[in-house]
Amino acid sequence: MLAVQEAPSKLIRGLGNAVGPQYVYTRAADLASYAYDAFGASGDREVPLAVVFPQTTEQLCHVVAECAHHRVPVIPRGAGTGYSSGAIGSGAVIVSMVRMNRLSEVDTRAQRVTAEAGVITSAIHHAADAAGLYYPPDPGSSTTSTIGGNVACNASGAHSLRYGSTSDYVSDLEIVLADGKRLAIGESYGGGYDVAGLICGSEGTLGFISAVTLRLITAPASRATLRAVFGDMQSAADAVAAIAKAGVVPAALECLDTAAIDAVRNSGVADVPEGVGAMIIAEVEGDQRVTDRDAELVRSALLEAGAGEVDHARNPAEANSLWAARKGVSAAVATIMIGKVNEDVVVPRDRVGELCERVRSIGVEHEVPSLVFGHLGEGNMHVTFLIDPRVPGERRRADAAAESLFETVLAMDGSLTGEHGIGTAKVGWVERQIGAGTIALMRRIKEEFDPAGLMNPGKKIPAERRSR
Amino acid sequence: MLAVQEAPSKLIRGLGNAVGPQYVYTRAADLASYAYDAFGASGDREVPLAVVFPQTTEQLCHVVAECAHHRVPVIPRGAGTGYSSGAIGSGAVIVSMVRMNRLSEVDTRAQRVTAEAGVITSAIHHAADAAGLYYPPDPGSSTTSTIGGNVACNASGAHSLRYGSTSDYVSDLEIVLADGKRLAIGESYGGGYDVAGLICGSEGTLGFISAVTLRLITAPASRATLRAVFGDMQSAADAVAAIAKAGVVPAALECLDTAAIDAVRNSGVADVPEGVGAMIIAEVEGDQRVTDRDAELVRSALLEAGAGEVDHARNPAEANSLWAARKGVSAAVATIMIGKVNEDVVVPRDRVGELCERVRSIGVEHEVPSLVFGHLGEGNMHVTFLIDPRVPGERRRADAAAESLFETVLAMDGSLTGEHGIGTAKVGWVERQIGAGTIALMRRIKEEFDPAGLMNPGKKIPAERRSR
Repeated sequence: MLAVQEAPSKLIRGLGNAVGPQYVYTRAADLASYAYDAFGASGDREVPLAVVFPQTTEQLCHVVAECAHHRVPVIPRGAGTGYSSGAIGSGAVIVSMVRMNRLSEVDTRAQRVTAEAGVITSAIHHAADAAGLYYPPDPGSSTTSTIGGNVACNASGAHSLRYGSTSDYVSDLEIVLADGKRLAIGESYGGGYDVAGLICGSEGTLGFISAVTLRLITAPASRATLRAVFGDMQSAADAVAAIAKAGVVPAALECLDTAAIDAVRNSGVADVPEGVGAMIIAEVEGDQRVTDRDAELVRSALLEAGAGEVDHARNPAEANSLWAARKGVSAAVATIMIGKVNEDVVVPRDRVGELCERVRSIGVEHEVPSLVFGHLGEGNMHVTFLIDPRVPGERRRADAAAESLFETVLAMDGSLTGEHGIGTAKVGWVERQIGAGTIALMRRIKEEFDPAGLMNPGKKIPAERRSR
Repeated sequence: MLAVQEAPSKLIRGLGNAVGPQYVYTRAADLASYAYDAFGASGDREVPLAVVFPQTTEQLCHVVAECAHHRVPVIPRGAGTGYSSGAIGSGAVIVSMVRMNRLSEVDTRAQRVTAEAGVITSAIHHAADAAGLYYPPDPGSSTTSTIGGNVACNASGAHSLRYGSTSDYVSDLEIVLADGKRLAIGESYGGGYDVAGLICGSEGTLGFISAVTLRLITAPASRATLRAVFGDMQSAADAVAAIAKAGVVPAALECLDTAAIDAVRNSGVADVPEGVGAMIIAEVEGDQRVTDRDAELVRSALLEAGAGEVDHARNPAEANSLWAARKGVSAAVATIMIGKVNEDVVVPRDRVGELCERVRSIGVEHEVPSLVFGHLGEGNMHVTFLIDPRVPGERRRADAAAESLFETVLAMDGSLTGEHGIGTAKVGWVERQIGAGTIALMRRIKEEFDPAGLMNPGKKIPAERRSR
């Protein structure tokens, strides 16, 4: 890790000057919490050199410049809710963005709001809502994850089926480059290359996001939620095609496989029927008449595809009850098993049934229980292998299962990640998906932004040589 | 222009080997048509060294590699409908994409279509339409311009108000890099940086677009068109705010100022009322009931803002008649004056009235007639100064008027271009808008893609030193 051992005390002093000494953590006990992300108990521990908490962009600039001066890797961290080890790194300086959490007034005329990177995403939902507007992206972690992390991973959640991804709502960005200089980019500074688009999804490897100006849209006047149960996942996947054929684009079209449904029921997280092979939760939005019509069309499509039963929520309380199973999967998993390997793969949406079959075989072969849930409408499925990492060999078997999963997904013309990011967890697989020529181009882009290779190194795209 | 003088015969032979000698133009009479774009009679002439017409991506790769070998600038050209001198260059090899015009079958299940760069945009509209789908981007030139040019300039047209820009519909790209290698990038090759997004709008300066895979959407079931006349442009601008307040996002919200209306009437291009200060054409789309309701809300908002009269087309023939004035502006201008300087500036949409006042003053000051029309809903206005370039001093006065316009727009927090691109026409102004720090970063990106500086040089971003 280069000059870390030689210069920590000078570096730490410099960081203290930048943010105030009380906002620089260096004690082992304080660093421990920053050695993992939501991959958590199952993942590797990577203990950083220090964790710093800037409160302003100026402070952030100083921190990055200080790390550049000492040639120490520097890693941005929002709420640490990622699953890809993107926000951790041994011997690095972790920059926690949680104190950069100011949110502007909503500009109702321009339909914009500006948030510092550490603002919790749900605060943006509430602010938009209070102004009669709507911020559609809604990652599963939105009550805890930060907008900076959402943008850095382009994590978008269930609503992207209808409304597009988080990057579609990014109007402008303020970023801090590898040399500590700040830059304002985006549509308000238009006319050049779409560098803001390049930063979205770059996982902190090109520059750090300090603030985001987001586009808001007019809020839909009404919403209807439906829940359907099926004999198997193939029938649920068929429902997606039937809904598309009916000309409806739901705001959300989510699913759980039989193992995920069982986990939810057994954990008591939500009340779900027994003996069910798959479940769909669909949501439609719009003008009241459009919502009524779309709900009816979705209901017909669900029944046509073989749904055994379709529940239709008519008010928010009923809707919350129907959503409980889907939103409770992660909590359910946590109660029945202490560890998991969670991968958000994408396959063509008409092949989700096939994917679920394959996942079951892979789980059996590697002797790890599996479950599947996620964004059915886009074929973006969260495949989870359950493990107890204290049991010798379980983590290794789950990793092997994940490798089989990636092989399967690539063979199905799928994608390694929908929204969780590449981080280090999937970086070894990226070249097979993207191709060597494009990776070479991306490496050159990376080198332009970050010639010393200190900005979240080793994440997102594989290093040319594994010299670390 | 580097080694051009030394190596033309070898270069020309190499190009002939790449595409067939009959598809390499070098005679002065043949080159003359490629010395200008739609800026046309008013613009500068830049005579190329040669024009080549590849038919396949392999041929395009050979052409680019050949130019790289001889260190000769190479410029992609679609239909040449641009206004920014982006597709011309003295001493360069112009690559006409018109023979690369294959269009795939529409994949109705995935809602995608793949077009080679030279496909005329309206062919995509027709193919989508025949498949019951919809490709929303619709530049004013869509019956003549190519999809490659649309993507290279991110030119999007009237529908972007509701449906977003052309880049929002680009799923994948095939590009040819400066060394002649081809690369497939985009969501099907996901996981890395958004290089496809970076290529959109880069005006051929980073790589050449050889093919585009586009997202299509479900076609709206119905459409209504309204036309309103106002006493002045400020009232028309007020109508935009009233429409937004009513919660309607029209598919199009276009306008003409009094000079544009007069040009249309005097040229006989369309039948429009006399003594009118401004005109709005609005279009709403959706389910029949939504369309009816939105049309009624737009009508109320137009009247509330002071519209003297609102016509409401109920069928395509009536709609065409209402659109005739807006769509006929360019033709009208051509009949009343042989030359024009046409700038597509953007200002905050509540300041369009103010912009029109300023344009009138600028025209008076510089003694050039002016007119304004365009995409009112986004504040993207086409400001046109009319000139006879044969009259000494007229072009100079129009250029001076354009300079005043740019000063005005930047002072109004506006943008130099909405969709026509920077080309060389506005490249001198870019740094003032984007800022030196961001320009420096963009230059480094450019250098990574194009180290020898041969890909459409001098366009889009200003060169560091004006060594040419």
